[in-house]
Amino acid sequence: MKIAVLGAGGRMGQALTRAVAETPGCTVAGGVEQADSEFIGKDVGEVAGLEPLGVTITDNPVPLFAEVQAVLDFTSPKATVEFAALSAQARIVHVIGTTGLSDEDIDALEAASRHATIIRAGNMSMGVNLLANLTEKVAKALDDSFDVEIVELHHRHKKDAPSGTALMLGEAAAKARGVSLKDKGVFAREGQTGERGVGDIGFSCMRGGDVVGEHKIVFVGPGERIELGHIATDRGIFSRGAVKAAQWGFGKPPGLYSMADVLGL
Amino acid sequence: MKIAVLGAGGRMGQALTRAVAETPGCTVAGGVEQADSEFIGKDVGEVAGLEPLGVTITDNPVPLFAEVQAVLDFTSPKATVEFAALSAQARIVHVIGTTGLSDEDIDALEAASRHATIIRAGNMSMGVNLLANLTEKVAKALDDSFDVEIVELHHRHKKDAPSGTALMLGEAAAKARGVSLKDKGVFAREGQTGERGVGDIGFSCMRGGDVVGEHKIVFVGPGERIELGHIATDRGIFSRGAVKAAQWGFGKPPGLYSMADVLGL
Amino acid sequence: MKIAVLGAGGRMGQALTRAVAETPGCTVAGGVEQADSEFIGKDVGEVAGLEPLGVTITDNPVPLFAEVQAVLDFTSPKATVEFAALSAQARIVHVIGTTGLSDEDIDALEAASRHATIIRAGNMSMGVNLLANLTEKVAKALDDSFDVEIVELHHRHKKDAPSGTALMLGEAAAKARGVSLKDKGVFAREGQTGERGVGDIGFSCMRGGDVVGEHKIVFVGPGERIELGHIATDRGIFSRGAVKAAQWGFGKPPGLYSMADVLGL
Amino acid sequence: MKIAVLGAGGRMGQALTRAVAETPGCTVAGGVEQADSEFIGKDVGEVAGLEPLGVTITDNPVPLFAEVQAVLDFTSPKATVEFAALSAQARIVHVIGTTGLSDEDIDALEAASRHATIIRAGNMSMGVNLLANLTEKVAKALDDSFDVEIVELHHRHKKDAPSGTALMLGEAAAKARGVSLKDKGVFAREGQTGERGVGDIGFSCMRGGDVVGEHKIVFVGPGERIELGHIATDRGIFSRGAVKAAQWGFGKPPGLYSMADVLGL
Repeated sequence: MKIAVLGAGGRMGQALTRAVAETPGCTVAGGVEQADSEFIGKDVGEVAGLEPLGVTITDNPVPLFAEVQAVLDFTSPKATVEFAALSAQARIVHVIGTTGLSDEDIDALEAASRHATIIRAGNMSMGVNLLANLTEKVAKALDDSFDVEIVELHHRHKKDAPSGTALMLGEAAAKARGVSLKDKGVFAREGQTGERGVGDIGFSCMRGGDVVGEHKIVFVGPGERIELGHIATDRGIFSRGAVKAAQWGFGKPPGLYSMADVLGL
Repeated sequence: MKIAVLGAGGRMGQALTRAVAETPGCTVAGGVEQADSEFIGKDVGEVAGLEPLGVTITDNPVPLFAEVQAVLDFTSPKATVEFAALSAQARIVHVIGTTGLSDEDIDALEAASRHATIIRAGNMSMGVNLLANLTEKVAKALDDSFDVEIVELHHRHKKDAPSGTALMLGEAAAKARGVSLKDKGVFAREGQTGERGVGDIGFSCMRGGDVVGEHKIVFVGPGERIELGHIATDRGIFSRGAVKAAQWGFGKPPGLYSMADVLGL
Repeated sequence: MKIAVLGAGGRMGQALTRAVAETPGCTVAGGVEQADSEFIGKDVGEVAGLEPLGVTITDNPVPLFAEVQAVLDFTSPKATVEFAALSAQARIVHVIGTTGLSDEDIDALEAASRHATIIRAGNMSMGVNLLANLTEKVAKALDDSFDVEIVELHHRHKKDAPSGTALMLGEAAAKARGVSLKDKGVFAREGQTGERGVGDIGFSCMRGGDVVGEHKIVFVGPGERIELGHIATDRGIFSRGAVKAAQWGFGKPPGLYSMADVLGL
Repeated sequence: MKIAVLGAGGRMGQALTRAVAETPGCTVAGGVEQADSEFIGKDVGEVAGLEPLGVTITDNPVPLFAEVQAVLDFTSPKATVEFAALSAQARIVHVIGTTGLSDEDIDALEAASRHATIIRAGNMSMGVNLLANLTEKVAKALDDSFDVEIVELHHRHKKDAPSGTALMLGEAAAKARGVSLKDKGVFAREGQTGERGVGDIGFSCMRGGDVVGEHKIVFVGPGERIELGHIATDRGIFSRGAVKAAQWGFGKPPGLYSMADVLGL
């Protein structure tokens, strides 16, 4: 399977190149960057810290899209929308990890998905998407006698809290319980808090060291507890998940898919 | 909802009585014991360490079955099969936590379930049944690049290993992966073990103190890990699960159900 | 060893009575309550939910102190100070779990400890005191390249955060690092927090179910992490710790001791 | 501080070079390899995957030892003993992570330590050494009513069980309790095990994925539990620990030290 990497010069693009190169049955067929990028004309492999792969980074995506079965895209909303139109023309797989898409951007992706096989996710890790799905399932199976608490641990340089993934888990629990996270989320406990509110969804954020990312969602009931956890030790899981998504999409009919589809959930 | 407790004089029977008594909307309508039991004629509540409930333990189940909506039964295989015939006659809910049932016993329960609403489970805890279901789901979604390990912790008096619940989780993972636990289960690692076999399902058994029971199933993949855990701190979860099953069964058509049905999985 | 329970009618007093009664080599020699208590004259054992022990609750401590080797005291600051004077007269062991003592109260205890063997602790659990000691040790051995995070989980009815024990652990870490918890404690993280401050001591508070109490202190460094945890599953650990303290104090010279002394730390 | 790396061409030697190079205040002053090594004459930095450092790998240690303040040595027992004689002559710091030393080898190191400042450890991780020390402390403070269980998790390629570190923790607990691990270690639990033996030290070994190494030692008592854990996420902790040891040793009198000394325990 021939795969091109969009934004191949960036940090995430380089990781995607490495993930494709290490996957049996997949080859890196080229890379795309903006016209003014310093990486134009350079070998995609060398840019990613690998041996040369014999294909270069171009600012002209059209011929490349015609030649590959899939493109991996963690760029910007504007670029992603433009690339999606090309994917639709080429009728190929388009894996999108771009964040910050507006409702209009998503409308544009939906339009493109009539002809392209688009897989889009805010987080491409197999494990995190699985965890969100399990969270929804458990939150639905267990009633309010089980309190929901989410705890996450990230490295000391992280600047916001809770993590996007923790919020995604909280949203999954809230949705399953038919409540709004805005109403039920509790993001800090300090001093005289009073008793825990029924149906609250609590968040705890730990920071330290060089931890890649750990999340645990706990359902604490009378005399028993269910704990669902995800531990990431390598940032490569996001690029590897993108490659898995591309492989899954190969041969699937056009449409707009999520990682839940890839996982068969 | 009026509920009778079968085997009301035993340790588990007493726990069931307490669980019914503490559940809003449920009342203890009576208890059954064998004719030679010392508890015949005694107050069901007092036997269970509660205030008197005004109903006694009898050795004549027929009138009692006619009067209640459900019976809770953690007795013996022989007794359970006989009680099931009575439940079918009375067309009531029959919650069965009895263990050691033979294939013939189960055939008899199936026959009874044409008229009785039978809910049967080897373990009545909501959490453990949920965990088994999640295990199956995750084992199916993640391929052999994720290694399966099960670890459990129980009190120092436990005489066998792994626990029945750990084996149940292992079976769930094996089933989802299309393999046999007999082939793939690894129950001890000591000395020169060699590398882990692909597709192995490992078990680790810790013993100590007065721990009620903890289970964790871990899916360890490249750069990430999923952990599913259950922690029991109170043996009351089994009797409470039985009461939940009875409540769920009320009004359901006759049939043979499991805790997965009660949990809506 | 003959032991009396002060405040024997209260919930903690009853737990202390049970702990003494179940300890080989110890006997409950009597109980003390205020003159207007409904428990005066009742059997100490029956008040604690046990079989009768043949000794009653009195409002006259003096003869009782003369007769025992130790008293257990989880009462009020005012009562504790008065009892300490009696312990000094009787030259016995006085185990104090009373909270809320003022500096003056402690001065009074010091005075009494010239003749009484006083063991005082804010938390009588062996495990929690051990954890505080380990925390200090690790915080001293590892420099600021290891970030300190404390996370605790308590039942849904707890009304304040962090727990007293979490603060005690934070104080232990701060002391070992030569900083003040007031300066370095971070009690909530929400929104745009910026990077973690060097030397910060973070707290996370989870609430749910009927959890007795769990604490974990994590030292997160580059490429490795140390975790120290305490899990309480039974409130009886506090009363059992008090009895251990009394046993330890028997035969020791007068003085003011802590649980660290009892643990031999 | 000028530091030389012995065995600079090997995998561990390269890691040591990188650890020295990244430590403020330390410089890589050269490397040593056997005369027939392909690395002789090459730049130490380039061999370790860094930019050139301007110093080369030599097979002649004597002038190098005369020039540096410390040497890092994870080579072979024979080489280590020879290097120790040179360290004694040069009166420098000699950090030894070499494994498989015989009693005679250690005698030779003791002799050399009259003039060299030798720091030797089977495991150079700060965290693991700290954990072993804490284990001893807790095992001493808590009696046999607290059961000791050790659980470890390592990657799927590990060929033996339990890990050397797990055994080191078990030895620490056994020593503190005054028993022999040979008598009290329980390395597998399967089938009808009977109740846990008083004073047993249990081991559980999990294997999976690419986990660097995790250890937990649990003291499970009545109603409470102490857990001590170490999580390694980066093999660099061993080389970083060696550099810390060298820094600590600088200026210390000659002698044979352990990581416990470095940690100030």
